Amino acid sequence: MKIAIAQLNPTIGDLAGNAQQILTAAQQAAAQNVRLLLTPELSLCGYPPRDLLMDPSFVESMATTLQQLAQALPTQLAVLVGTVDPNNKSPQEGGKPLFNSVALLENGKVQQIFHKRLLPTYDVFDEDRYFEPGREVNHFILSLGNTGDAGRSIHIGVTICEDLWNDEEFWGKRSYAINPFSDLAQQGVDLTINLSASPYSAGKQAVREAMLHHSATRFHQPVIYANQVGGNDDLIFDGNSVAFNRAGEVVCRSRSFATDLTIVEYHPEKKDLVPATPTTIAPLPHDLDAEIWAALVLGVCDYARKCGFHKAVIGLSGGIDSALVAAIAAAALGADNVLGVLMPSPYSSDHSVNDALVLAENLGIQTQTLPIGELMQGYDRTLADLFAGTSFGIAEENIQSRIRGNLLMAIANKFGYLLLSTGNKSEMAVGYCTLYGDMNGGLAAIADVPKTRVYSICQWLNTNFGSSILEFGLNSSPKPTSFSEAAQSAIQNPKSDRNPKSEIIPTNILTKAPSAELKPGQVDQDSLPAYDILDDILHRLIHDHQSPAQVVSAGHNAATVNKVVKLVTRAEFKRRQAPPVLKVTDRAFGMGWRMPIASKWVATSD
Amino acid sequence: MKIAIAQLNPTIGDLAGNAQQILTAAQQAAAQNVRLLLTPELSLCGYPPRDLLMDPSFVESMATTLQQLAQALPTQLAVLVGTVDPNNKSPQEGGKPLFNSVALLENGKVQQIFHKRLLPTYDVFDEDRYFEPGREVNHFILSLGNTGDAGRSIHIGVTICEDLWNDEEFWGKRSYAINPFSDLAQQGVDLTINLSASPYSAGKQAVREAMLHHSATRFHQPVIYANQVGGNDDLIFDGNSVAFNRAGEVVCRSRSFATDLTIVEYHPEKKDLVPATPTTIAPLPHDLDAEIWAALVLGVCDYARKCGFHKAVIGLSGGIDSALVAAIAAAALGADNVLGVLMPSPYSSDHSVNDALVLAENLGIQTQTLPIGELMQGYDRTLADLFAGTSFGIAEENIQSRIRGNLLMAIANKFGYLLLSTGNKSEMAVGYCTLYGDMNGGLAAIADVPKTRVYSICQWLNTNFGSSILEFGLNSSPKPTSFSEAAQSAIQNPKSDRNPKSEIIPTNILTKAPSAELKPGQVDQDSLPAYDILDDILHRLIHDHQSPAQVVSAGHNAATVNKVVKLVTRAEFKRRQAPPVLKVTDRAFGMGWRMPIASKWVATSD
Repeated sequence: MKIAIAQLNPTIGDLAGNAQQILTAAQQAAAQNVRLLLTPELSLCGYPPRDLLMDPSFVESMATTLQQLAQALPTQLAVLVGTVDPNNKSPQEGGKPLFNSVALLENGKVQQIFHKRLLPTYDVFDEDRYFEPGREVNHFILSLGNTGDAGRSIHIGVTICEDLWNDEEFWGKRSYAINPFSDLAQQGVDLTINLSASPYSAGKQAVREAMLHHSATRFHQPVIYANQVGGNDDLIFDGNSVAFNRAGEVVCRSRSFATDLTIVEYHPEKKDLVPATPTTIAPLPHDLDAEIWAALVLGVCDYARKCGFHKAVIGLSGGIDSALVAAIAAAALGADNVLGVLMPSPYSSDHSVNDALVLAENLGIQTQTLPIGELMQGYDRTLADLFAGTSFGIAEENIQSRIRGNLLMAIANKFGYLLLSTGNKSEMAVGYCTLYGDMNGGLAAIADVPKTRVYSICQWLNTNFGSSILEFGLNSSPKPTSFSEAAQSAIQNPKSDRNPKSEIIPTNILTKAPSAELKPGQVDQDSLPAYDILDDILHRLIHDHQSPAQVVSAGHNAATVNKVVKLVTRAEFKRRQAPPVLKVTDRAFGMGWRMPIASKWVATSD
Repeated sequence: MKIAIAQLNPTIGDLAGNAQQILTAAQQAAAQNVRLLLTPELSLCGYPPRDLLMDPSFVESMATTLQQLAQALPTQLAVLVGTVDPNNKSPQEGGKPLFNSVALLENGKVQQIFHKRLLPTYDVFDEDRYFEPGREVNHFILSLGNTGDAGRSIHIGVTICEDLWNDEEFWGKRSYAINPFSDLAQQGVDLTINLSASPYSAGKQAVREAMLHHSATRFHQPVIYANQVGGNDDLIFDGNSVAFNRAGEVVCRSRSFATDLTIVEYHPEKKDLVPATPTTIAPLPHDLDAEIWAALVLGVCDYARKCGFHKAVIGLSGGIDSALVAAIAAAALGADNVLGVLMPSPYSSDHSVNDALVLAENLGIQTQTLPIGELMQGYDRTLADLFAGTSFGIAEENIQSRIRGNLLMAIANKFGYLLLSTGNKSEMAVGYCTLYGDMNGGLAAIADVPKTRVYSICQWLNTNFGSSILEFGLNSSPKPTSFSEAAQSAIQNPKSDRNPKSEIIPTNILTKAPSAELKPGQVDQDSLPAYDILDDILHRLIHDHQSPAQVVSAGHNAATVNKVVKLVTRAEFKRRQAPPVLKVTDRAFGMGWRMPIASKWVATSD
């Protein structure tokens, strides 16, 4: 019996469009004699719908769309669709108004509804805000009658995303009191399926597969994991849907960062999953640089596409951050759709302008040069009386950055372009950035990428692609929805047979000392520790929840650690007003980082 | 037996400072022979601590501070302190790492810990993110031995904030399966107390008191509600701690929007609360304008104080929004600490400049005038080639707003002032504001106040105060922490015996047509429906969760409703980057409004 995973890329709230994606996948699956089709968690509305769930007309429209979809689907195919289900509680019972649900559609109707049992409420997740946890163990019987296995049936357990993430053996502890996988095993199901919308973070697929392998072997259960793919605001979903047989072996895997329709076979005699013919086991990205690059390209592409932007504008400083963002944008939207704007000041070095122009030529993007010296003088004159007797300082540095921010937004507003901000995670952490200046943008493309990783991704780009990056875009006609074959191949094959024609990121950008160039001779390390030290300290504080004392114990200088802690705390007001940050780590600034601003807590190593 | 409510104003994370506040209140209470002192929910760390709770060193410091506080407290006084308690679960049990808790401190030690049972996870609340719900019914026996009632004792039920907000009779439904008040009544407690951090919204105290009255009479239980006061980022806590006897009558009430120490008497024979002598029943603000004004003044004052700002800067356009914000700032920080900046353009009318100068004179604040015409020309020249052949439009309008935003931030940066943004809720809803322009600021003072309410508050100011607003500040020496007596009296007494010396908000500002003055002859109503219509539509959509069809049924024009819905949806990217918005309604933009940006859901009335 064939089972297919529709690894879809829904747009939040686009009920008709998402239903059409499901229908198209169902028609393709039916044509290949598939009996059961899986779609991602909340596939009808896209994940995460957030407070749209509090709009009663939205919930009503979902119910209507689900019924219409049920009627439109091919017969002989059962389809599992992610949707919401009202919690028809009595006024005495209490509880949230909805269940995060999966509907089993077959023969023109909603046959059964299953409710998610474990609701993630941590990091970027807010499911307790909207949903009541399901109280039932979710399973159903699927007849194989119309697929050549007349009279037979298969007993299938249904789980939704988090339901599978509570194996106390694997994690060493439980996050919730129950383990739905264990409950299903006790019910004696033949197969457990999981409909997910599991956001990407670097290295996460290895964890998922280790966990699924563990659970499959622990419960002697084949398991199919169907994930969402695509970018929705700050969150990137990497796809990588995968299935394991009872022995914990991978029997199929969908592509990374691309929509896919992947077929796997259930073998009734073996009571196990087996690879379909032809077998589909997509390879994984070969390293973290490749993976993060692919995630960021998808994140930028989908944010632009789903917001209706076709073109992007980027301030090119000649530094490495804007170089990487320009490369990402060129890959995501096509080089023709990216405008780089150079805005040199009297403090800009010649090499900055040259490096930016070489980069733009390498990428094949257009540039505009708008010197800001005259505008700086205009602000100086306007503020002369008020600032008389004060020295050049942060205020004046920020004016320059905000002139550039104003020019970039003027271009974005005038021509309908998406402005991408170019700050990295290290500077966002310590506030080494100007609010309403270089932080401006609809999307912060690399603000979850530490500076040291910015370097390694750029080096990886130069080593692996050279100017072939220009082919490394997404299928962009009529609308980009997935990586091109070239892109798939590129992120999967280390140092493939490509011959880099030339560097993409000019070597000078990779080797010169980082500088904001807001005053003469300035370099980042005047104000900040060396980036390898800073990034290690930040990782310990932000990701590992280490105390300053623990960071010092790990070998860092106490004064440096305390300075970094203080900078991170004080920069909260800037981060609060940052654009959405594409999340590629376990703890990104944004929805998953909820800090008070007017706070007196500053941890120290003492 | 005397019980006191310490209505405190903690700073988030200032463990030592907050403990000192509790200690000072305890010493004052002990001097008045009080037996039991109540403090607000999480009084040790301040509410809401947000993701500081995920920092293990923060949680450890709280435990240490709690022990030290217990040892420092006066003997013969029992004190209830809001804190967190680790969830010492086994790895098999699951659950969140902390309980939201109340510690009973007496005789130098933590005697007992109580866990909050109902965890709000809606609107601005995220308690399921951090806390495990308590499983026990919380109560304790307090001996009256050392207060002249030797041998007697009282049985006290303990609840924490949300624990009391689930009376299915009062609300017509339950939000949670249990009602802790009912459980306590079944335990036969003599008195139920509630430690709260209940944020302000307009009219909320009436709801609280109706609910507490209902529960007191329903369960024949006296009840004491001790609330936090003060501003913490976007949230304003109004105090208004209050107690009800068994008959549901108010026996004491603390002040609105001010710290307080309020004493009430428990009468062992009557087994009921009775008013203390002297009786303290603070009056409530006399109407919504008074209440919202007081809330905003407190919100601005505390944000400035807790962030370390002494002075504020505001762009004065001559319009009503900046007029109200300037008045709020003058009341919050003192007129001497407010700088109004006029930044006229060639499109500014003469009356705008004059009106702003009259306002500043009325308020007694300083002004600076920085014309922006030259800078506008500078941008025009810089962008001339790129914009050649295009018409004046939104891009050019936004440039002006962003020039002003840059100048204001330059002043804020140069002199260490807090920039207050001046946009109202109506324009924030429909996006009638410029990101990185007039939206700039550390705090959005009135971005939860609809335009029609901006008018009514200004009219109320003129009617009730005139220039006596200059006395209507906060006690500002050495640090402002609460309203002055004059301010208390003012918000409580309608049209008191004050004789307004003159108007505060110039009449011309109140009567002229609102205009952004970004192009010649522009008025808001060129782009937007009349504000009374717009505000009613917005209230129905945002607060009442009505569908567009319902709003049309209520009598609004369908095309207007659909236009407003579209504008609200499209402006999400601006709101995401707004400063914290002082919350004064049930549904403010900010932490309580979590919408996707790249969404295709736009409800229509069809």
